[in-house]
Order: sequence, then C-alpha cells, then structure tokens
Amino acid sequence: MQIETPYLMFLGDVPDTLAAKTAYGIKDWRPEWCVGQMRLPGCAADLGIPDLTLDEAMAKGCRTLVIGVANAGGILPGHWVSEIVAALNAGLDIASGLHARLGAVPEIAAAAKANGRQLHDVRHTHETFATGKGTKRPGKRLLSVGTDCSVGKKYTVLALERGMRERGLDADFRATGQTGVFISGRGVAIDAVVADFISGAVEWIAPAADPDHWDLLEGQGSLFHPSFAGVSLGLLHGAQADAFVVCHEPSRTTMRGVQHPLPTIRQVIDLTVQLGRLTNPDIRPVGIAVNTQSLEEGAARALLADLAHEHGLPATDPVRFGVDAIVDRLVAEFPKAAA
Amino acid sequence: MQIETPYLMFLGDVPDTLAAKTAYGIKDWRPEWCVGQMRLPGCAADLGIPDLTLDEAMAKGCRTLVIGVANAGGILPGHWVSEIVAALNAGLDIASGLHARLGAVPEIAAAAKANGRQLHDVRHTHETFATGKGTKRPGKRLLSVGTDCSVGKKYTVLALERGMRERGLDADFRATGQTGVFISGRGVAIDAVVADFISGAVEWIAPAADPDHWDLLEGQGSLFHPSFAGVSLGLLHGAQADAFVVCHEPSRTTMRGVQHPLPTIRQVIDLTVQLGRLTNPDIRPVGIAVNTQSLEEGAARALLADLAHEHGLPATDPVRFGVDAIVDRLVAEFPKAAA
Repeated sequence: MQIETPYLMFLGDVPDTLAAKTAYGIKDWRPEWCVGQMRLPGCAADLGIPDLTLDEAMAKGCRTLVIGVANAGGILPGHWVSEIVAALNAGLDIASGLHARLGAVPEIAAAAKANGRQLHDVRHTHETFATGKGTKRPGKRLLSVGTDCSVGKKYTVLALERGMRERGLDADFRATGQTGVFISGRGVAIDAVVADFISGAVEWIAPAADPDHWDLLEGQGSLFHPSFAGVSLGLLHGAQADAFVVCHEPSRTTMRGVQHPLPTIRQVIDLTVQLGRLTNPDIRPVGIAVNTQSLEEGAARALLADLAHEHGLPATDPVRFGVDAIVDRLVAEFPKAAA
Repeated sequence: MQIETPYLMFLGDVPDTLAAKTAYGIKDWRPEWCVGQMRLPGCAADLGIPDLTLDEAMAKGCRTLVIGVANAGGILPGHWVSEIVAALNAGLDIASGLHARLGAVPEIAAAAKANGRQLHDVRHTHETFATGKGTKRPGKRLLSVGTDCSVGKKYTVLALERGMRERGLDADFRATGQTGVFISGRGVAIDAVVADFISGAVEWIAPAADPDHWDLLEGQGSLFHPSFAGVSLGLLHGAQADAFVVCHEPSRTTMRGVQHPLPTIRQVIDLTVQLGRLTNPDIRPVGIAVNTQSLEEGAARALLADLAHEHGLPATDPVRFGVDAIVDRLVAEFPKAAA
C-alpha cells in the first residue's frame, strides 16, 4: 500500500478531538504532507491548518483525502459518502482508517472506478505475504517494545527517526499500525494480518537494506499482554531487531483492557532478548522511553535518572526531553561499517 | 460450516507426503469418509486408497472434493483450477484448507454458482471474536506443543481423546487447524484468524466448562519457529493450559521451511512453562510424544525410555505405542474434584 501525498485531512463532523486522534498524529509528524483540512458543520476537531475546498486542495497539489477519524463502530456515516464521492470526482484518492471498507459502499466503488482513483483501507490489506523465513537480512533494525499497549511505541520511533536524521544517519520509520501507515505513506497494520503471516509481513515491511541503514519499527502490544503477546512475538521475530527501546507509562496499574499487572522494565528487557535471539543472536537494548506526561518535570527527571542507573541504559521521555541519549548509545553500540 | 461427506481427496502434484498432511490426517482419523483420492502427474503423495475419476467418485456417492494439501503460503496453484472446475461441474462441493479463498478465483466462483455447489474455505471463518481476556476460566485444558511444525501435535491430542474416553474421562478434541476442522466438523483454523484475535479465538474454541472436563487443544507451530511462534504464543495464552504434551520428530535436522535448528525438548518445556504462566500459573508438562516412524521398534523404545528418564515424564509414540502412560500421569496429576 503506497498512499500518494500530500493529504487533505477529512475530519467529518466528529464530536471531539479524541475521535480525530489519527488525524492529529499525522499532522504532528507529517505537517508538510497536510495541505489542509475539510470539516463538516458541527465538527469539534481542528488541526489548526487551513480549511480547504476540494478545488483549493487540488490547486495545492493534494493527491489523497485522508479519513483520519474514528466514530462509534468504525462505521462510515451515510452523510460522508457524498463528500467522498465528490473528492473522487475531483481527482483525489481516498485513504481510510475506518473498520468499514470504502469499496463496500457502491457509490464510492463506482466513483473510484469511473475516475480511475485508488481506495486505501488502511486497516485492511490485499497484500499477499510469504510466511516469515527468519533468515538474517542485511541492514539494521530497531524495534520499540513495551510494558503494555499504548505506551508510546510509535512516538518513540518517530522521534528517533527525526533525531537520527538530524545526525545524518540513514533511518526510516516503518509503520505497523494504521496511524503509522498514514504517517509513512506505506506499510501494513500488522494487527489486521492473518496470524500465520505476522513475521512474514514484518520481513516485507522492513526488507533487506544497506548495512548502515536503520529501519525503525513501531512495536505493538507487549510480550506480557495476554491478548496481544502473539502479535508482539511475531513482530519481534520478523524484525530481527538489532536494537530495541523499552517504552513505559509509569501511571498504569494494570495492562490495558485486562486485569494483568504490568511487567517490570527488567522483565521486558530480559524476555525480549531471550526470545529475540531466535532471529538475531546479537539483539540488545539501547534505551528506555517513558511517557512522563503524568509527572512534574522534577519527578520525571528523577524517575528517568533512576531507570538509567538501574538498567545501565539511556532513559528519556522522547517527546519531552528528546532522544539524543538513545541516539548516542545507538551510534556507540553500532559503529558504521568502514567505507 | 457443514461439509457434506464422503470425500474425494485431491492431492494435486505435491512434492512430498508432508505437504499432504491434511489429507493423511483425514484418512487416518476418518477413513470411512474417504472414498478415494485424485492425483495429478508428479504427485509424490499416496493415501493408499483408490485413485478415482470424478465419475467413479460420484458413483460411490462422493459429495465433496477435499483439497487436502498445505503448501507454503497456502497458495492455490493455477494448474489446479481446471480440476476444481471439473469437480464442480461433476456435482461435487469443494472444501479447501488453503489460505487462498476458492471464491477469489473467478472460474471457480462461476462454476460453483452455475452448478449450485458449495465452496468451503476451512481456514476462513465468519465468526467474530473478542480479543483475549486472559481471565482464568473453569474446566481443564491440555495443549500439545512442539519442537517444530508437523511433529504430531494433532495426532497426539486425537489419540488422547480416544484414550481418555476409553477410561471414562470427559474429554473433547478441539481443532485449531484445517485438518482438525475436517476431522471434527467444528473449530477454527487459528492460523487464519486476524493476529489481534488469536488468543480470543482460542478462548472461544475452548470455553468455560465443567471443572473435570478436559479440552484437548491441538497446538500449532512452535515457540521456537521463526515463522509461527506468534501463533503458538497466542494459542498458549488463550488455552490457559493446565497441562501440555511436548511433541517431537527425532529425524528433523532443521525446523520446517527455515534454516533454524530444532530446540531441545528441555528448551520447549522450559519456555512453555515460562510463557504459559502468564495466563495459568500452574501449567505443567505431562508427557512427551515422539513420532518414531523413522526408527526401528527397538531404537524407538530405547529413545522413549531415555527421554522419559531424562525429563521425568512419560514418553511415547501415540500412534505406535498408545497414550496410556500420558493418561496415567494426567489422572495422577489432576485428580477429579470430589463429587
């Protein structure tokens, strides 16, 4: 799936900003791709970018209308259909993060066909994957792993991509979730892939590359989460991670959606190394990323210092304090091959 | 999904017998349903039942052509299509264990419609699953795990079902793969479930039950297999296994389809206990099941004795020597609740 950029961000008439969190994520990390937004009467979200008509968006070179919103049940509301059809008629592709498939709406399917436009359902994939082979491939890969779901795994690798590129390193974010696919313009929502092909899909997402190139893979779930550990393990094996960063959210008391307690950071490091060695015997941790949003700055810095000392690893909040310390460690641990 | 019996077993032109393990499994456990086989030139598999033309199969009352092969990736080879269309034209339904959907091939879809025949894609399900919750549920569960794929995990639990029922125990085979679904007439091919729902689907396959009831869950893959470990882990977590049997094939030198060496039985026991404790802290091994087909009887018995001694567990070849020793251990380890 290759989504053409730049995007016109369709927000519909969502009742709050949370319903548009995918759109906010795209705007935060790819502002240069977001030429404008399109909102219907009653829309409570605002990305802070120009409201554009379809003609205005086309004049700015826009290629794709992005439906970066969620509504109850993931359904496509009937009154959005005419807007989507109009966008197709204007010459835009459509990319949607809804559960409902765009092509299942006859008017949309017909308009896409008539205009020769693409419909991208980011939560679904038509890509056929091979099963994972586990054969070591060239290029370097970093995976963000977590003590739980929703602890900042995507933001961590996006921040690393930015920080590594600023240092002149050759690094690419590799999406494995729907928001990430919009942000990278490419990838697969790994949690929608058939179970047999998880690691194979990851081998496809982050293929063989130059020996000094880094793929920065967005992790999913946690090896300790009873609902999703299988996904996390397939992702770890497919990534053949050389390096990983443990992501953590210190205010969490139980794992998301279940009654299980959170594992410790030490447990996550140990199990990730133990299981990751199957496809990369040299896997090692290079940092700890903590979402410190719930803490005052002093408390956040103290926690990070404690974690860094305890684990002998750089510990930071990537959004609040940057990723320099982790990039330093990465450069030290993985010196570039001689030219 | 109701598959009409008896079956004509389609083997195509598979290059070895292992690739036809679905067909062998059905023939071994439901011989009364298998009226004959259909093979293409070059086929290296042979079920030891009559080779029949479509007309001969119809004359024997056959109702369904079963595509009983499991090739890498589950692809439907182009040169099988005309054979499948001919079977539909002759009046047979088609049931397939491949990942590829029969109805996705236009010629097959058209022939099914024209003849009013059913297409069963056993690896696909229309069932909607919740994500796994990991909450301990009543009833007992045994899972077969393996040092590799295709080492007898299904045979082991089918033999245990037979052996336990002969002892008056309340035990049910629970299919998690396409062959098991053909054999039991129910279940879900877990390796075709969307990755997010693996453990949730297993919670659905083996639901809460009477405290003395045993669900005997067919394992898949191996925690040490780089292609499929994620599936194996989701299955282990969803099963909340009280007991497990390690299945092994001693002639294997590398894991199936990849270059990785086999883990030891000890490694499989240790990792299964370590990871299984997340959803069942009391998980324990109750036996070792070895496919000794490649060994003389004396060598087979010696190997089993060595393994039993080394691991302090009953070790048997379920097909060759029965499962009494494992059932003995199970009864001893899990005494029935007082009436």
